[in-house]
Amino acid sequence: MPKLPVMIHGFGNVGKNVLQALEASPDMQCIGVLRRTVSLGARMHELRGVPDFSDLDNLIGKVGKPAVVFVCGPSRKVPEDAARYLAAGLHTVDSFDIHSEISSLIGKLDAAAKASGKAAVTAAGWDPGTDSVLRALFEAMAPTGTTFTNFGRGRSMGHSVAARAVAGVADAVSITIPTGGGRHSRLVYVLSAPDATQDAIRRDIAADPYFNSDPLEIRFVDSKETLQAVADDSHGVLMERTGASGFSSNQQLRFDMRINNPALTGQVLVAAARAATRMAPGCYTLIDIPPVALLPGERLDNVARLV
Amino acid sequence: MPKLPVMIHGFGNVGKNVLQALEASPDMQCIGVLRRTVSLGARMHELRGVPDFSDLDNLIGKVGKPAVVFVCGPSRKVPEDAARYLAAGLHTVDSFDIHSEISSLIGKLDAAAKASGKAAVTAAGWDPGTDSVLRALFEAMAPTGTTFTNFGRGRSMGHSVAARAVAGVADAVSITIPTGGGRHSRLVYVLSAPDATQDAIRRDIAADPYFNSDPLEIRFVDSKETLQAVADDSHGVLMERTGASGFSSNQQLRFDMRINNPALTGQVLVAAARAATRMAPGCYTLIDIPPVALLPGERLDNVARLV
Repeated sequence: MPKLPVMIHGFGNVGKNVLQALEASPDMQCIGVLRRTVSLGARMHELRGVPDFSDLDNLIGKVGKPAVVFVCGPSRKVPEDAARYLAAGLHTVDSFDIHSEISSLIGKLDAAAKASGKAAVTAAGWDPGTDSVLRALFEAMAPTGTTFTNFGRGRSMGHSVAARAVAGVADAVSITIPTGGGRHSRLVYVLSAPDATQDAIRRDIAADPYFNSDPLEIRFVDSKETLQAVADDSHGVLMERTGASGFSSNQQLRFDMRINNPALTGQVLVAAARAATRMAPGCYTLIDIPPVALLPGERLDNVARLV
Repeated sequence: MPKLPVMIHGFGNVGKNVLQALEASPDMQCIGVLRRTVSLGARMHELRGVPDFSDLDNLIGKVGKPAVVFVCGPSRKVPEDAARYLAAGLHTVDSFDIHSEISSLIGKLDAAAKASGKAAVTAAGWDPGTDSVLRALFEAMAPTGTTFTNFGRGRSMGHSVAARAVAGVADAVSITIPTGGGRHSRLVYVLSAPDATQDAIRRDIAADPYFNSDPLEIRFVDSKETLQAVADDSHGVLMERTGASGFSSNQQLRFDMRINNPALTGQVLVAAARAATRMAPGCYTLIDIPPVALLPGERLDNVARLV
């Protein structure tokens, strides 16, 4: 079957994993990667043979117009980047992960998508994303009750970035450790800058909004290599709901996953891109999308196989 | 908020649990139960104050027109019953559970639903149903791999009915026991009729299509009471997928639930009824429905809360 042409905006951890998931997919082909600095030399292999560009017009001129853009820059940049691509007449998908700002982002992208007759799928990773689908499904199954989403043990990209932004921190890795009941502690490995004091770093990380409500332990390391040795991509979730269906209590629902974090994010974005081409113009999260629309192939074939 | 008026067709195990789930729901009200014999005396309490009728015109004349019908008769009767209600201008939901016949049922109900401008949600229990959603989601997350759906330990309503239909069986309860890798053994408790021979019953159950491909043990009991003592509603599923996202193997996804079986089926049907009122005319399974449409309340409120 002819493959849908798509492009990747931003070539960090998520963008690289989207590229691999696209190469493994039967129905999409990455025609180009857009990033600030085009590739030279040593890391060319990460592009897996796909050409990279620093400008959309240049990309379209060389390899044609993509149907979908994977918006893989930092979350803070997603609202502006996705709106721009929608205005250019392209579907967008992103893994925007600032939970408290998803509603306003939906409003912004919904207007941009409808204005250009395209679809945007936002917050499409695993949390927010596939975990959100499970939270919705679990509530439908047992409407009265409590859901705990327990993250980890694993490296939190968001918390690591926040720790790295603290003055005097040269580099940092933040590990999320579940302590039960949907609560977590943070273990942060820090490589300090030469002129920094550990006490100031401890104080500033503890005061950061990402860290100030959870138990925190900071461990200083003495080299980039020691830090890299704790920075693998393993992560996981244990989601537990105990509740009642009708008047029947003790309904026990559990979802447990142990995964490579950016690989799953990249794969979910590829599924979301497929859905974007099947939805009416507008902005959607994963709970707004029929699950069958995430899969390659015809709806009724998948229904016959999976239902 | 004003509650959506709905009715229940068929008042067996599933119908009774739908009634309880409706009583616990914030947005729907059961205005009537339709069944062959209207209720008298001792079991009136099961109706929980809801009037019952033996005829749709009579029900509508007395309590008004419902928006949705819960089609809760035996699966074999669902195609005919649901099509008739759709033709009468009512949305339908059912928990049809014969996996191999779902595709043809969708074709039939889709035509009937579109002809009357209504929606049908079919195969809406937990398997087929919510398990189907998980199978689809797990495939989207890790497209290469294997999913095992392990049922039980619990009482299979379908296998119990099949065993009861064997000549010489007065009553039977069939327990499904998972043996790993999505395979199962069956433990069937049988109360034989006075003139029956155990060897013939063993032979005929073993030859039945419900039983002939799995390890089977039959235990004869000597009273209805002994049989009832093993017939509780507990059931469960362990769904396991190991696969790859992109080129990253060892993605481990598990869903484990331990539930009251008919209570969950009734609750999922109530969620499906809500979705039926929100979908365009046509026939849907749960994997064709945005998860948010299963929940009471406004879409964007649920997105803000759950995504």
